[in-house]
Amino acid sequence: MTLTTGVRDMAELAARIAAGDRRALSKGITLVESTRPDHRAEARALLAALPALGRPAMRLGLTGTPGVGKSTFIESFGLMLADDGLRVAVLAVDPSSGVSGGSILGDKTRMDRLSRHTGAYIRPSPSNRTLGGVARRTREAVRLCEAAGFDLVLIETVGVGQSETMVANMTDLFLLLLAPAGGDELQGVKRGIMEMADLVLVNKADGALKAEAERAAADYAGALRLMRHRPIDPDGFPKVRTVSAMTGAGLAEARSELETLFNWRRKQGVLAERRRTQDLGWFRDEVDAGLRDLLDSDEDLRAKLADSARAVADGAAPDAAAADLLDALRARLSG
Amino acid sequence: MTLTTGVRDMAELAARIAAGDRRALSKGITLVESTRPDHRAEARALLAALPALGRPAMRLGLTGTPGVGKSTFIESFGLMLADDGLRVAVLAVDPSSGVSGGSILGDKTRMDRLSRHTGAYIRPSPSNRTLGGVARRTREAVRLCEAAGFDLVLIETVGVGQSETMVANMTDLFLLLLAPAGGDELQGVKRGIMEMADLVLVNKADGALKAEAERAAADYAGALRLMRHRPIDPDGFPKVRTVSAMTGAGLAEARSELETLFNWRRKQGVLAERRRTQDLGWFRDEVDAGLRDLLDSDEDLRAKLADSARAVADGAAPDAAAADLLDALRARLSG
Repeated sequence: MTLTTGVRDMAELAARIAAGDRRALSKGITLVESTRPDHRAEARALLAALPALGRPAMRLGLTGTPGVGKSTFIESFGLMLADDGLRVAVLAVDPSSGVSGGSILGDKTRMDRLSRHTGAYIRPSPSNRTLGGVARRTREAVRLCEAAGFDLVLIETVGVGQSETMVANMTDLFLLLLAPAGGDELQGVKRGIMEMADLVLVNKADGALKAEAERAAADYAGALRLMRHRPIDPDGFPKVRTVSAMTGAGLAEARSELETLFNWRRKQGVLAERRRTQDLGWFRDEVDAGLRDLLDSDEDLRAKLADSARAVADGAAPDAAAADLLDALRARLSG
Repeated sequence: MTLTTGVRDMAELAARIAAGDRRALSKGITLVESTRPDHRAEARALLAALPALGRPAMRLGLTGTPGVGKSTFIESFGLMLADDGLRVAVLAVDPSSGVSGGSILGDKTRMDRLSRHTGAYIRPSPSNRTLGGVARRTREAVRLCEAAGFDLVLIETVGVGQSETMVANMTDLFLLLLAPAGGDELQGVKRGIMEMADLVLVNKADGALKAEAERAAADYAGALRLMRHRPIDPDGFPKVRTVSAMTGAGLAEARSELETLFNWRRKQGVLAERRRTQDLGWFRDEVDAGLRDLLDSDEDLRAKLADSARAVADGAAPDAAAADLLDALRARLSG
């Protein structure tokens, strides 16, 4: 696949993506994930050429404890929606996948039936990236999916480091999937993650585990009532429900809860305000990242940065070394 | 107190600080804590004028759970060292003090006897600062205290957000003070904090609580053995000991453990390597902060930043807006 097709062709690629061409979408996402400077220029041209959004897709963040059955849940939940005529995109965020040598989540082989459905699109996590790098590129991939007309863009995270916060900062709703065990297990869920959740689903509510899942749901509901009061949401949210990704029990109810909250927030203007705030954060992140790139993009400054770092390692005062470097940059600005 | 005395006078201020003048030290710290651009220039001149370090002071980080008796511990431990002829500086790091309207920790009234000792110097946390701002200025205050000839620079943190990590990144040794309660209480100590500790002290090992403190120490020692293996330290570290800040029991032993570890690391070159790594981190932080200031320091770029942010709030694409702003900055660089 040739990526470098020239900025000129980006209008055509944008049009193909908007027309629902799956291969064009994959090519576009590969382009926004690339770090090559010429690809970055093309990616910017592509994003600029996308048509304005019509009805917003539901951007749904998903996390869960290891072994809770995230892939099975996404497959069952996604198939239910896709069979109902909705278009579902799944993006995986896994900053660690570079380390382990491959994508753990979002792997198409783990969501085999969903990946073969004509209404669904599954994209594994970009590999070999820092969390910040993954964030920048995932936001752009979400925009491509929205332009391609998906109704739901689900962003799954493996929950390494700050990845949940990152995903919550680019989605409209946040879903937390938990195992059917209460009490001590509750301690294992980070409080910050519980606080981000709009809907908590206790999975594996089937067979012998059904009663346990229901007890766990009651425990979690109690914990949530203690820790959160969010006056901008309708009564009862954040909610805790049980589901079985295996049997499909509770999935329709979970969908209904998500749609209720999404539509409520849209009507109240909360959704637009949240996206505006997220866009401003995105803008600031891009500016910060660009500022750091600035030193790298100029040969003289890059050499001076390396010299200064060497001097600090040899005992020079860090603040003075940094000040000198910034003075050199400032001198270039006024020159 | 006049701060703006001209860059010329900074050599004199540096000399007075190095001569042990307490008022000069306070003036110097106030200067490095100031955000005024002219003060920043003076602070840089002051730091550059400081004499090279002789024997390094022990930089000791301290944190503890609320109510564990940090102030009492610092007062007892500091008095023991000061009575022994050592010079002890105490800096408090409390990024939240701006919010609550005053310094909570490091308050001289809470360490009344230590603050009146001629061998001790106590400086409250700078207020109204972000964590990053506190980090930058505290590192500079540590350098002033070292130049003033203090043998121990103790940096106390209240443990808000990432402040422990920040303090660990600017100290040689990290001390964790815990309450005499094991079992469930152990869960309340963040794992990351336990992992940073070189010495864990269970306080209040006196009277009725003595046995409980000893049980807790055994529990913590067991937990530490499970979670950490650090081959660069001598046998037995990280250690867990009991103390009573009230009666003074165990304080001499705690001092001895800290000195053993400090001297071992100094001889092995671990201390110098750790400080070199910390200096490089400090350098990078200063460069990042300076880059962010860059946009603010130029009138045209500041106006463009505000315009871009407004455009994003009105629906412009965040990545394109950021790219435009950075292009403008780059154009100025090559102009």
